[in-house]
Amino acid sequence: MAMDKIVECVPNFSEGRRTEVIERILDCFRNVADVKLLDYSKDADHNRMVVTVVGQPNALAEAVLNAMHRASQLIDLTQHQGQHPRMGATDVVPFIPISNVTENEAIELSHYVGEQAYARYGIPVFLYEKSATAPNRENLADIRKGEFEGMADKMLLDEWHPDYGENHPHPTAGVTAVGMRMPLVAFNVNLDTSDVNIATKISKKVRFIGGGLRYCKAIGVELEQRNTAQVSMNLTNYTKTPIYTTLEMVRMEARRYGVKIIGTELIGLCPAQALIDCAKYYVQVDAEGKADLSAYTSKQLIDKAVEYLLIENFTERTVLENNF
Amino acid sequence: MAMDKIVECVPNFSEGRRTEVIERILDCFRNVADVKLLDYSKDADHNRMVVTVVGQPNALAEAVLNAMHRASQLIDLTQHQGQHPRMGATDVVPFIPISNVTENEAIELSHYVGEQAYARYGIPVFLYEKSATAPNRENLADIRKGEFEGMADKMLLDEWHPDYGENHPHPTAGVTAVGMRMPLVAFNVNLDTSDVNIATKISKKVRFIGGGLRYCKAIGVELEQRNTAQVSMNLTNYTKTPIYTTLEMVRMEARRYGVKIIGTELIGLCPAQALIDCAKYYVQVDAEGKADLSAYTSKQLIDKAVEYLLIENFTERTVLENNF
Repeated sequence: MAMDKIVECVPNFSEGRRTEVIERILDCFRNVADVKLLDYSKDADHNRMVVTVVGQPNALAEAVLNAMHRASQLIDLTQHQGQHPRMGATDVVPFIPISNVTENEAIELSHYVGEQAYARYGIPVFLYEKSATAPNRENLADIRKGEFEGMADKMLLDEWHPDYGENHPHPTAGVTAVGMRMPLVAFNVNLDTSDVNIATKISKKVRFIGGGLRYCKAIGVELEQRNTAQVSMNLTNYTKTPIYTTLEMVRMEARRYGVKIIGTELIGLCPAQALIDCAKYYVQVDAEGKADLSAYTSKQLIDKAVEYLLIENFTERTVLENNF
Repeated sequence: MAMDKIVECVPNFSEGRRTEVIERILDCFRNVADVKLLDYSKDADHNRMVVTVVGQPNALAEAVLNAMHRASQLIDLTQHQGQHPRMGATDVVPFIPISNVTENEAIELSHYVGEQAYARYGIPVFLYEKSATAPNRENLADIRKGEFEGMADKMLLDEWHPDYGENHPHPTAGVTAVGMRMPLVAFNVNLDTSDVNIATKISKKVRFIGGGLRYCKAIGVELEQRNTAQVSMNLTNYTKTPIYTTLEMVRMEARRYGVKIIGTELIGLCPAQALIDCAKYYVQVDAEGKADLSAYTSKQLIDKAVEYLLIENFTERTVLENNF
C-alpha cells in the first residue's frame, strides 16, 4: 500500500483508570479495514489515555468518530477527576498527514470530523492548530483554559463560540478540539562529553527560542547511566526544519567546545520522508551535488539516512509507515 | 571612549525636499557634545529624510528631542505630500543599543523621549517594537495605518490611545512612533556559482520563514557584473542569530550543490560585538575549545572575524563604533 493516502491520529480520551471503558474505546480502532491501532498509553494519575492510530483518511475519520461517540457514552466529565487538564470525554483529536496526503487534505479531514461529531453526537468542536479559524484558537492550552467546569460560561463569549455546535458544551462529554498538525520528530544527539552544561549551551543556540531553527525545541539532558550529555530535540515541522539541519547545527556548535557527536536516537515513530530528505542531503554532499537520486529506492535512502545521521536505536518499526 | 555607553538612533523626518528645513533639522545633531551625525539620506519622491546618529544616551535623547521640536515647527503635515506613508513630522524614532547598553536601558531611553516629546512639545507618542505596550503596537505599519489624515479618528479608539499624550494628534506635526529595536546586520555571502537558483534555494533553507534561523531574512541575488550568485541576508538580532551561524548554515546547504563560498560582504555599519562574537566561535573551533579568549584585544578579535568570515569589503569604518 505504498501509494495509499495515510493519516495518523493521536486522540486523547479522558479515561485512564477503568479498563472496561479503555478497552471499549480501543475496540473502535481494532479490526477496522484500512485502520491500524499502533499504540496507546494510559495514566491513572492523569486519568487519561493517548491513542496512536493510522489509516486511510475516510476509514480513520469514521473510526475516530465512533470512538468519540463511545467516549461520550461512557465518560461523564461531571464525575471526572485527574491531574491532566481536560475539557471533553474526547479531549483533543490531532490529525497528522503522513503519506500522499497534503496539509490541506488533512485540514479538510479535521473539518469533516468536527462537523460530524456535532451533527451526529452533539459534541461541540473547536478547530485548533493548523485547522484553527482564528489566531487565538491555534494553541490548545488557550482553548482548554477553564477546562470542562468553566466551558459553559466561556462558550457564551462571542470569541469562544465553537466552530461546530451551539454555544454550550455537551452536558457530560464537554467539548473536543480537532485539528491538523505536522508530525513531531523526537531526535536526540549524544555528545562525547558528560558535561550537561555544554549540551545545554548547544541547545540554546539550536532552538527557536534562542535564535536558532524555527521548528526546533531543544534541551540539554544528562544521561547518567551512559555517562554522556545529550541534546534532546523535538522537531515540530520536519519538512521545514529537517533532521539533518539540526544535527549539523549541533555539530557546528559542539565544535567550539572541542566536542564531537557519538551517536543519535529517534524516539517514537518517524515518517519515512523525514529520513529520505536527510539521505538526499548527505548523498549530494558526498557527490558534490552530482548524485543521481533516482538511482536509489526509498528503502536504500532510509538506510543511508540511518548511517549518515548516526542513529543508534533504529529498527524497521522506527519508520512509521512500516507498522501497517 | 571604549567603555562609554553608546546608542544609535535612526529618526525619520517627513521632509525630503526643502534643503533649508533639512539642514535646520540636521543642525540639531551637529556640534553636540557626545553625539555624532553619521549619515543621512533624503528622498524627494518620498519627501522624507532618514538620519543616522550615535551618541551617549542622555546627550542623544536631548538632540533627538530638539530635532523633533524643530521638525514640528518647520513641517506641516496638513500640507505634506510624498510616496512614503507617514503620520508625523518626525515619523519614527528607533533607538538601537550598541555598546555597554542593555536592551532595557535602551527601552527606558525610548520611554523618556516619548514622555518628553509630549510634555515639552505636545507631540503624542506611540511606543513601538520592543518598547511596545501591547502586541498590536509592535509593528510600525499597524500603528501608522491610516497615516496622518486618519489619525484623528483612529486615536479616538480606546485601543489606539497613545502611550504619551491625549487622544488626538498634534494639529500639524501628527504623532510619532518611538521605540527600541536591535541593530540590523546586512550580510551577503557570495558563491562560486553564477546560478541564482542555487542561491535562492539556500536562502529558503536559511531564513526564518522557510524553517531556518529565527532572526534571519534572506534572498538569492544575481550579481551580473561579478558573474556570481549571492545569498543576501538581514539579521534582525545578531546576538541571538549570530553572523557565523548564518555563514555556516549557508556553507552547509551549499555543499549539497557542490558549491563553495568565495567571500562575503557587510553592507552598512556593523556593531563591534557582532564581529567579536564570531571571532570567539572560530578561535575556539580552531583550538578545540581550549583557547584563552582573554588573551585577545577587541581589535584582534575583529581582525580574526574579518578573516574567518571572509569579509571582502571591510574597512575600519565598517565597525559602527569606529565612526566617532
